[in-house]
Amino acid sequence: MAVRINENYLKLRGSYLFAEIGRRVAAFKQRNPHARVISLGIGDVTRPLPRAVIESLHQAVDEMGRVETFKGYGPEQGYDFLIKRIIEYDYRSRGIELEEDEVFISDGSKCDTGNIQEIFGADNIVAVTDPVYPVYVDTNVMAGRAGNLDESGKYDRIVYLPCNAENNFIPELPKQRVDMIYLCYPNNPTGMTLPKSELKKWVDYARENKSIILYDAAYEAYIREEDVPHSIYEIEGAKEVAIEFRSFSKTAGFTGTRCAYTVVPKKVMGYTQRGEAVPLNRLWNRRQTTKFNGVSYIVQRGAAAIYTEEGQKQVRELIDYYMANAAIIRQGLLEMGFQVFGGINAPYIWLKIPEGMDSWTFFDKLLNEAHVVGTPGVGFGPSGEGYFRLTAFGSREDTREAIERLKAMKNFC
Amino acid sequence: MAVRINENYLKLRGSYLFAEIGRRVAAFKQRNPHARVISLGIGDVTRPLPRAVIESLHQAVDEMGRVETFKGYGPEQGYDFLIKRIIEYDYRSRGIELEEDEVFISDGSKCDTGNIQEIFGADNIVAVTDPVYPVYVDTNVMAGRAGNLDESGKYDRIVYLPCNAENNFIPELPKQRVDMIYLCYPNNPTGMTLPKSELKKWVDYARENKSIILYDAAYEAYIREEDVPHSIYEIEGAKEVAIEFRSFSKTAGFTGTRCAYTVVPKKVMGYTQRGEAVPLNRLWNRRQTTKFNGVSYIVQRGAAAIYTEEGQKQVRELIDYYMANAAIIRQGLLEMGFQVFGGINAPYIWLKIPEGMDSWTFFDKLLNEAHVVGTPGVGFGPSGEGYFRLTAFGSREDTREAIERLKAMKNFC
Repeated sequence: MAVRINENYLKLRGSYLFAEIGRRVAAFKQRNPHARVISLGIGDVTRPLPRAVIESLHQAVDEMGRVETFKGYGPEQGYDFLIKRIIEYDYRSRGIELEEDEVFISDGSKCDTGNIQEIFGADNIVAVTDPVYPVYVDTNVMAGRAGNLDESGKYDRIVYLPCNAENNFIPELPKQRVDMIYLCYPNNPTGMTLPKSELKKWVDYARENKSIILYDAAYEAYIREEDVPHSIYEIEGAKEVAIEFRSFSKTAGFTGTRCAYTVVPKKVMGYTQRGEAVPLNRLWNRRQTTKFNGVSYIVQRGAAAIYTEEGQKQVRELIDYYMANAAIIRQGLLEMGFQVFGGINAPYIWLKIPEGMDSWTFFDKLLNEAHVVGTPGVGFGPSGEGYFRLTAFGSREDTREAIERLKAMKNFC
Repeated sequence: MAVRINENYLKLRGSYLFAEIGRRVAAFKQRNPHARVISLGIGDVTRPLPRAVIESLHQAVDEMGRVETFKGYGPEQGYDFLIKRIIEYDYRSRGIELEEDEVFISDGSKCDTGNIQEIFGADNIVAVTDPVYPVYVDTNVMAGRAGNLDESGKYDRIVYLPCNAENNFIPELPKQRVDMIYLCYPNNPTGMTLPKSELKKWVDYARENKSIILYDAAYEAYIREEDVPHSIYEIEGAKEVAIEFRSFSKTAGFTGTRCAYTVVPKKVMGYTQRGEAVPLNRLWNRRQTTKFNGVSYIVQRGAAAIYTEEGQKQVRELIDYYMANAAIIRQGLLEMGFQVFGGINAPYIWLKIPEGMDSWTFFDKLLNEAHVVGTPGVGFGPSGEGYFRLTAFGSREDTREAIERLKAMKNFC
């Protein structure tokens, strides 16, 4: 007899995608200490926090230094001052009404999209688009919902919804019944979006089948085109079937500062074995109050500053900066003859790798020959094989130089 | 067919203890809008952050505002600059050597002690002291390890280790085999400690039975007496069987700032069904890299500042302040004739309620008659019935006034 581990962990792939990239880059740098590596790989921002955020953070730090204004534990769900502004700026402005206790502030969408599966039963069937952000899959593997990894790189209890150039990255409704559907739009990694008419199909499917949609809108702030929904709640009936995740990471440069939020409308239901409906809002609230202690007061104050006239302006400038990078990458790749997707409503550019090369080979080639780091498509799922992700989060100079270096590589094929 | 919830959540008690306290206090305040309620209930600090921390936070905020020093994603496990100092100040100083990848920075011990069970098998038998910090039990209920709640307020698959005045709050080794043992010393809620000789019994038990000890040392900084272990790793062999949790919350006033850490030595093993040993360090690393994105850079910089000469001095002053409160509470209660425990190596005072009164009745009585909030012992488990927790985290003035108000209440029995 001995204490047992959660053996589902042994079913995970070797390592988290970005850890593997980090390992290869570190090895390259060791071999080439003088090479200047440009990373357009991991989706991490590089511009400083907006001025309004910095000022608000300083004020909050000062509050923590005085007994009169010091803050201890805050509400696990987040402070009202932030929740009210989120509702007003991110939802009411688009005609969506939310109650304050339907919004949960957290320290990141990775945590929230990773933890949300805890409130669901172990036997649910999970559907993910393919390619997909690895966290959705890995956290379900850990929970025992994924089954075993087969030779094609798929888990045998997960339903994969291929998204590729052939279907213009629009997933088809699954043939079999699924319970938990992860959708991310604007999409990571492909940078593509779903028009309202397509998103409506999913909401209708979920209502009909009593399924749940886990809607990751972390890149919402990058949407430029009309008819691209900013929130799933723009679709009629979505409040009955969808949980939405949003983040300050890419909106306001918070990847190292840590703040995000999750919307769980009170109408969204899950069901017991006996068929009783249970509000997921209640379960998530219980999960968060039991296992989480709220986001740093200082950080929440910083996040709140983006919801001011100044803050909004500065956030728009930040996003414009990255989207100008995206245009440079898109344009450069098109000039080089690549088939290119995304980069219009998202900071991600998804390119088709020349025939006959796999995506880790392409990764190594770019790293070794151009000293440019991207992300191999297959790291996001089997249907990502043959594709490669570049991100618009570098500096303007690095982005330009990376594209110049790629252009200087002659032998792509 | 419908998406299923995790029905283990329905086995939880009505609400998280402190949420229930909050509810009763809010109701009281509504009925008595002019009453000045003093809370010695929830274990939340009230003194401002130390000056060294404030300065370090300001510097870090400024770094985030400049492109040259901006920080995006950090290591999920935390920054080296903080980990190195933790090892040096909190462990090496006591003769304990740790490697850097054995320390994981997090946003709170509540999160860590709540999440740690994820890496363990669902069939393990959990042992907790009784009374106990509710998070250990509730997170195992959610994971399906606890069984069902019986009439005595116990879950039928959890092994409870009673701690009460009769055994001087020293738990006995369990008669049956247990796999996961939660120990918290200095103890929340009782404020009591375990001498080295007693802790050694647990380490020996765990080594003999291939069990794991989850050792919560969040209140380590409050230890004043000799022979009280500061870390479980002071006990020989503990690195093979123990995971230790520490927090900046009570050490440096970080309850609203959020930083903690967990030590998972590489020698600590869990086992597969087939008996293979798997390092828990690897599993926890995978859990954290998959579901967590690190603590705010700003906050980690703030935490690092306590490991300086100035910072150490300021933290000692902070703890001295609270421990002077503890002495006032202890002394006051003793003068009133209560049997009192804790408050010597911990900021918690655990008092025996007069015979014939239950702990929620005592809670309501204190709230209604003295406008003082404490925590009913039964909220921490069945063996907590008949006891009541007061905390030393108030201001000096409030602490003194609370004791005066209690003294003014004549009819305790």
